[in-house]
Amino acid sequence: MAERSQVFPAAEFRDRLDRLQHQMMLRDLELLLLTTPADIFYLTGFLTRFWESPARPWYLLVPVAAPPVAIIPSIGANLMASTWIDDIRTWEAPNPADDGLSLLVDAIAEYRSSGAGLGIPMGPETYLRMPQADLHRLSQSIDAPLIDGTDALRRTREVKSEAEISKIREICSIAGDAFARLPEQIQVGQPLEEIFRVFQTLLLQSGADWVSYLAGAVGQDGYGDVISPATKAPLRAGDVLMLDTGAVKDGYFCDFDRNIFVGERSEAVRRTDEALWTATEDVLEKIRPGHRACDIHQMLIDALEHQGVRPCPGRLGHGLGITLTEWPSFAPFDTTELREGMVLTIEPSAFVKGDRFLVHEENFVLRADGAELLSPRAPRSGLEL
Amino acid sequence: MAERSQVFPAAEFRDRLDRLQHQMMLRDLELLLLTTPADIFYLTGFLTRFWESPARPWYLLVPVAAPPVAIIPSIGANLMASTWIDDIRTWEAPNPADDGLSLLVDAIAEYRSSGAGLGIPMGPETYLRMPQADLHRLSQSIDAPLIDGTDALRRTREVKSEAEISKIREICSIAGDAFARLPEQIQVGQPLEEIFRVFQTLLLQSGADWVSYLAGAVGQDGYGDVISPATKAPLRAGDVLMLDTGAVKDGYFCDFDRNIFVGERSEAVRRTDEALWTATEDVLEKIRPGHRACDIHQMLIDALEHQGVRPCPGRLGHGLGITLTEWPSFAPFDTTELREGMVLTIEPSAFVKGDRFLVHEENFVLRADGAELLSPRAPRSGLEL
Repeated sequence: MAERSQVFPAAEFRDRLDRLQHQMMLRDLELLLLTTPADIFYLTGFLTRFWESPARPWYLLVPVAAPPVAIIPSIGANLMASTWIDDIRTWEAPNPADDGLSLLVDAIAEYRSSGAGLGIPMGPETYLRMPQADLHRLSQSIDAPLIDGTDALRRTREVKSEAEISKIREICSIAGDAFARLPEQIQVGQPLEEIFRVFQTLLLQSGADWVSYLAGAVGQDGYGDVISPATKAPLRAGDVLMLDTGAVKDGYFCDFDRNIFVGERSEAVRRTDEALWTATEDVLEKIRPGHRACDIHQMLIDALEHQGVRPCPGRLGHGLGITLTEWPSFAPFDTTELREGMVLTIEPSAFVKGDRFLVHEENFVLRADGAELLSPRAPRSGLEL
Repeated sequence: MAERSQVFPAAEFRDRLDRLQHQMMLRDLELLLLTTPADIFYLTGFLTRFWESPARPWYLLVPVAAPPVAIIPSIGANLMASTWIDDIRTWEAPNPADDGLSLLVDAIAEYRSSGAGLGIPMGPETYLRMPQADLHRLSQSIDAPLIDGTDALRRTREVKSEAEISKIREICSIAGDAFARLPEQIQVGQPLEEIFRVFQTLLLQSGADWVSYLAGAVGQDGYGDVISPATKAPLRAGDVLMLDTGAVKDGYFCDFDRNIFVGERSEAVRRTDEALWTATEDVLEKIRPGHRACDIHQMLIDALEHQGVRPCPGRLGHGLGITLTEWPSFAPFDTTELREGMVLTIEPSAFVKGDRFLVHEENFVLRADGAELLSPRAPRSGLEL
């Protein structure tokens, strides 16, 4: 089943590697060690759901001036061999006595000059998918400082190629189809957990490979939570049903939600919903390369307050691609400069009454002349049941 | 949508905490810091798919003699408040300047006596879901050694309660129903990626909350890979189609596969398939508490070789529960003593021809008097299309 892992031609991955190595060079970073599903998929095309098993570490070592070395459990050898990666070194994992470490130490020795550090992602929104005890052993074996590779990776991954944008457009379109068909397949009285199953089925039928993320919320005057799984509670007249999905096609995510109004909506709900739609529209019109992420946050806050609704705290959008959320954050702290080719979500939320709120979300790619929508734009008047 | 997170009554979680704290006491472990979806769900019942977003770290601090403290992004406050956890401290995340660290440092100070270390999972099959730079800052702020908490956690999680066993039985039954219905819904000529969608839909219709894992393989004399996603290749007469799923119900996984024979099977396939079925049967009859994990590996190897087939290298089964795979491993290196209440998979595989192989898998709970199957036993003659 090897062909599928070649979601892109080798040239796509060579270009990604070139861009990453350029960023490494700018930072005097000789070697970068990657361990997560997203980072390894990004550079190799190695796509599997087997990451669900925490039993084995997987390593990709990226030298600044040579092709990457995959140091992986033998169970993945066949699939990795179907990618553009040539240098694949395997061991029979799990093996607590030496879970790939000696292979990794050897590979590092081949590419590291004396005194140079080993780059690993260390910064916000990163983690290392390997045991801490092994990291400690590694760091002692190579006698080299661990240095921060976060920025080199970020600056590379945050700008998407046209091939990547096409994939995100495709999964956004799939999710759009599923949302459009949902109202005719659900009804008042149906338990929410059934609605979640119907929606996941629609996503698959519409062409998603799998559904990595689905959360939802329901309430009469908005909802109090946007990350919960489904309950057995039945859908009621007057409810707002919000579903938010990260479905996946060829390893790329969408991340947007829709609000479905069950019968009459209250005046407070109607007003908040319209303010969110309008604020989104405002920013989609105004956003340009050169803006900082925090500028977009402020634009959204201004647009919401201008309409007399109270914005929710927290970030109001973020990057999107091979994970459900990526940097930057549309938040006051984030001064990242927006660049052409970034794929982003815009996600304003505002309170309806007390702690009940509504959230809208759209996905787009930033072009030289502004936003190009990837999600089909939510209808101004919302979806109705 | 808070009710659903209470998959179990508070007494279940209190019992888990008691058992973990007992293990901590035995090891002079004053404080344990947990960061992963599985560990946090295990002790709190906090169940969400929002972990798909890598943007925010989440912390659960477990003192040896006090209830756990949840230090989490405010976006999760509502859901965490629906669990049995009382001490919930939140911050507006992401916040690169202080992503929960000062809250975490304060909480540690409340519970740590001078000189005591901070336990974190460090060993095989673990990782820390937090940025390395924050771990470094944390370790400097608290001026305490980081010590290994892996064993305390393992010894606690590896023995399942009856409530947990029920959940795993339920998802195994759901997957069994989906497998049983699959042959009537697929046909020769259908692309494998369509078959994957049909199967995921059947899992949902049969009652799975979601499908976290699905891999499969197909071939005329077995397959060369068991972790790949679907290709566009059509199913052919003479193929063996293997599907392996980790579907989820209330946070608990099944993990078993089925082989579907498309028309006539070759003599080599038939013989290998029968040897795997018989080896599985052998071990299901013989396995008892007190065996070591490596003993079961040897039993499987012996049973396969006795039947004249060549076993594949690697582990031949593992623990199962709130992740797709858990320790122990049925592998030569693993001397873990098997205990009553462990939920395990048995997963023998053997070569058919060259590098092509077949794999069988069943799930069971170990009782005082032996294995109690949780997956419906695969028919001796296999599934046929």
